[in-house]
Amino acid sequence: MPEGEKEITIYDIAARLNVSAATVSRGLKDHPRVSKATKKLIIKTAEEMGYRSNSFASNLRKKQSNVIGVIVPRLNSSFMADVLAGIEKVVNNNNYNLFISQSLESMQKEASNARAMLNSRVDGLLVSVAYDTANFDHFEPFIKRNIPVIFFDRVFDHESCPQIYIDNYKAAYDITGHLIKQGCKRIVHITGNQLRNVYSERFRGYKRALEENNREFDNGLVIINDLSSKAGTEAAAEILKMSPLPDGLFVANDICAVSCMQALKKEGINIPNDIAVAGFNNDPTSCVIEPNLTTVNYKGYEMGEVAAKLMINHLVDKYDLQETHSLILRSELIIRESSLRNGDGNVD
Amino acid sequence: MPEGEKEITIYDIAARLNVSAATVSRGLKDHPRVSKATKKLIIKTAEEMGYRSNSFASNLRKKQSNVIGVIVPRLNSSFMADVLAGIEKVVNNNNYNLFISQSLESMQKEASNARAMLNSRVDGLLVSVAYDTANFDHFEPFIKRNIPVIFFDRVFDHESCPQIYIDNYKAAYDITGHLIKQGCKRIVHITGNQLRNVYSERFRGYKRALEENNREFDNGLVIINDLSSKAGTEAAAEILKMSPLPDGLFVANDICAVSCMQALKKEGINIPNDIAVAGFNNDPTSCVIEPNLTTVNYKGYEMGEVAAKLMINHLVDKYDLQETHSLILRSELIIRESSLRNGDGNVD
Repeated sequence: MPEGEKEITIYDIAARLNVSAATVSRGLKDHPRVSKATKKLIIKTAEEMGYRSNSFASNLRKKQSNVIGVIVPRLNSSFMADVLAGIEKVVNNNNYNLFISQSLESMQKEASNARAMLNSRVDGLLVSVAYDTANFDHFEPFIKRNIPVIFFDRVFDHESCPQIYIDNYKAAYDITGHLIKQGCKRIVHITGNQLRNVYSERFRGYKRALEENNREFDNGLVIINDLSSKAGTEAAAEILKMSPLPDGLFVANDICAVSCMQALKKEGINIPNDIAVAGFNNDPTSCVIEPNLTTVNYKGYEMGEVAAKLMINHLVDKYDLQETHSLILRSELIIRESSLRNGDGNVD
Repeated sequence: MPEGEKEITIYDIAARLNVSAATVSRGLKDHPRVSKATKKLIIKTAEEMGYRSNSFASNLRKKQSNVIGVIVPRLNSSFMADVLAGIEKVVNNNNYNLFISQSLESMQKEASNARAMLNSRVDGLLVSVAYDTANFDHFEPFIKRNIPVIFFDRVFDHESCPQIYIDNYKAAYDITGHLIKQGCKRIVHITGNQLRNVYSERFRGYKRALEENNREFDNGLVIINDLSSKAGTEAAAEILKMSPLPDGLFVANDICAVSCMQALKKEGINIPNDIAVAGFNNDPTSCVIEPNLTTVNYKGYEMGEVAAKLMINHLVDKYDLQETHSLILRSELIIRESSLRNGDGNVD
């Protein structure tokens, strides 16, 4: 039964219970001078009447909403689901709630989300930046107000904000080296927006591995797209037109690698014998595609835990964020049939 | 440079600009009596100083935060990502922001999320309930305060809350009928918690199709688990122990169906000849597994759009929610190789 539009106050609760407003206020704050029975009655009545604690006014004093905001590019990857599960675990154990919003890969929407998070008075913000985020302006109000901002995975370089990521350079260097050891001479690399550390670092690792193995870098073998499933199908068409046909393929994520493999298989390409393929992320699909996809195991859950712990340490234990600039997490190469030409599992 | 812990007020902005607080207040509200140049300066200074509009106080008057809250069980399915993308589109087009939280399938956490959403003064709440949600208590405060609550997919029956879902009964009835037409005589059904409409309705459709085709319902062929990937592998072990071996399998989601298929294939079971398999959701993995999985195309994006439109119609155009109780969306059967024994694609 709606009680109309009026905000319920402690005075309304007091009137209903025939006690003083001061008693209601004390009861809601668990004050020792109010008896247990009265406290229980006050809390029950407050809930029944739809009373909301005056979080704004009390936030002005306590500076706390017990909500941590998260802004991520998209919610459609298994990796991001894992990261969020890791964040949730730590945050919930510390009695915080998580509000998640997605930038849909747009800086403009990221800025709008940040504004809404600021207005709803989150205690801290965890961010993995959008595809096209080019500046920090929309995060400045947080820094000005001492609200901690921590970047994870897709990070932005700012002196006040710690960054948590994996060594994308090394992982890409290792996986490209593995393809070279399998005998690949012309390795295509499919990657995303080079503004983003995760993609530019993987690109750098790919290049470095070629150099060290005396393979010439050929810009004609690099395809930059949005790494979606659709983009993978289109990239396959591009690869099939290359002459001579490449014999290796390293894609900067599994979703795109899997759809590309499916399209190549349809055209009669044998994987790994004609083209050896490697992806990135260890998405569950990488174990469903046949042959199973060689990839980099990117520990999303762990990354979420680490980011959330850093946030909680700062909020609860007043740990100084400035002392941590970067936290680099381990990742691991997982060799599967899509790149194994010797068939003996021996990569070295 | 942090400016300390103090909340910035219009008085601080006024002092900085050497104008009256009234001018700052009017400037921030786009009042016609303030010149464009002054407005611009006020807004720029407000942003620089980290001023946050007093959303609480103004909400008391306007009753608006321009944020819509969403509570979902988990963020780790392609279906849920589609739903959220559909919601985002509609909500953003109407200048609302979306805050998403996950219940992790626990009613207790769902209640905690609801409380945080209420305290942050969302304008409306979209909910798909947790695995074990057994009552409506945690949503009552929203109803009391006239904040609209709309259920989608996993719905809860309440007179004040519209529900949006697909006809799970009919979809399951159709897909079971299809397996029967393929010659299946002993069809295993793997499903989830029967408290949830989506699973109990699919179970009911399965049973009804058996009855209408004079197949006896056998409770020994029903496996209830959490429909995870791991549960699919375990279910395969259970199926392999059944004697005689079943010849059909209908799983209430694709994730579980795919892992079950993989485990059955490993043990030498031919799909579809030994066991014909069907899933539910049209998850992208259903097109990666070999043979491709027969499934129900569950239009998540459309469901999200419909739910968000109903919410926006109510919030913006004051459309009465009470008039809509249920919106049932269409789904479609997608027949693929995992269940096609005739090999000619002719199902009828």
